[in-house]
Amino acid sequence: MPGKLYGVGVGPGDPELLTLRALRVLEEVDTLIAPDSGRHGIALEIVRKATRREHRVLRLSFPMTKKREVLEEAWRHATERVYRALSRGDAAFITLGDPMFYSTFSYVLEGIRERYPEVEVEVVPGVSSLSACAASLGMPLVSGGESLAVVPAAYGVEELESLARSFDTVVLMKVSKRFDEIAEKIAKAGLEDKATVAVRCGSRGFTSGSLREVGEVEYLSMIILRGLRK
Amino acid sequence: MPGKLYGVGVGPGDPELLTLRALRVLEEVDTLIAPDSGRHGIALEIVRKATRREHRVLRLSFPMTKKREVLEEAWRHATERVYRALSRGDAAFITLGDPMFYSTFSYVLEGIRERYPEVEVEVVPGVSSLSACAASLGMPLVSGGESLAVVPAAYGVEELESLARSFDTVVLMKVSKRFDEIAEKIAKAGLEDKATVAVRCGSRGFTSGSLREVGEVEYLSMIILRGLRK
Repeated sequence: MPGKLYGVGVGPGDPELLTLRALRVLEEVDTLIAPDSGRHGIALEIVRKATRREHRVLRLSFPMTKKREVLEEAWRHATERVYRALSRGDAAFITLGDPMFYSTFSYVLEGIRERYPEVEVEVVPGVSSLSACAASLGMPLVSGGESLAVVPAAYGVEELESLARSFDTVVLMKVSKRFDEIAEKIAKAGLEDKATVAVRCGSRGFTSGSLREVGEVEYLSMIILRGLRK
Repeated sequence: MPGKLYGVGVGPGDPELLTLRALRVLEEVDTLIAPDSGRHGIALEIVRKATRREHRVLRLSFPMTKKREVLEEAWRHATERVYRALSRGDAAFITLGDPMFYSTFSYVLEGIRERYPEVEVEVVPGVSSLSACAASLGMPLVSGGESLAVVPAAYGVEELESLARSFDTVVLMKVSKRFDEIAEKIAKAGLEDKATVAVRCGSRGFTSGSLREVGEVEYLSMIILRGLRK
């Protein structure tokens, strides 16, 4: 019988934002599984600060590409390695934020479900980057009858204008790589005064500001457009 | 000097889904502030299970109405009571899930900011009902380049069809009151096979199923429409 696979959200950065259940699971399992990218290096750091338990660590590589075949091959390979790790006992796949919200865990979960349906899986939800940003900014995301759209930042100007007409709050994810281009689109859509950039939410080094104020924009940054239909 | 006001997310229901920081704050403050409705009765229950600290409890009433003037009067009154409570020291306004995601805390936060800007406020993010439902279902909300819309359930058939064309995942919140009507709209929009109903996510008594399968639908239920653009 293979061990149990946990998908554990370790929160946005500050080890105090781990849940009690995440901490318990991390103290129980022998093996941690962490994707081998900058972002998940942070997840491993959080775990190391939160518990003294020594873990075996399985690091998974995922190529930085959009080619579907290359990605699918990488996910298949990762699934096999995770399954082999489970032969030694329970393991926790750790993800920054929440495991069900833009995380690599979803691909491994799908692979395990398809090919090894006998594996027991438990997902431990975490504080998402979205909740962390709203808290750090002291800015409610939605209340009452309001609506929220969360979209990758690659949207065009017209689409942004249309989103701003239909939703009270729009969150642009993954903005670091093309920040200047995105800032320009927001300005063209006439939404600059509604935009707040949040960098490193829920961890030390948090900063925020308007599109013009914010300097360096890192991996975990997002832009929140708020008060759109007022 | 008034005490510090914390907005503390206590997670979706299971006391183990509290964060370490939420627990620390709840053990430090003398006063808890909790809206006097069924939902926040649950928040208080979670706190009582998680800590043995005896708290003074301030219960706030909010009328169940959509009349703007009545609501604004209630929020003003609540803000005054919260401010008075802070004269005795630090206090934590507890909310189920996350304080920045459909929570009454946002109104009190706004009131305090406007009228008592000298009050220090800290928001402690929590595991949202959204993350909890995705985890309980083992269903990723979004991954890769996908997009997410979160809307109150009062949307019409045409709007649902349009959302389903533009987003990969659509979450309908607050579905309990008019569940049959909403289920019919989803069926009319041809989206029945994409819909999963999740009830009491992240707490004991969690159930889920298709629109036809699910029986009783409670306050904290949501409907997730997934795989819309595949």
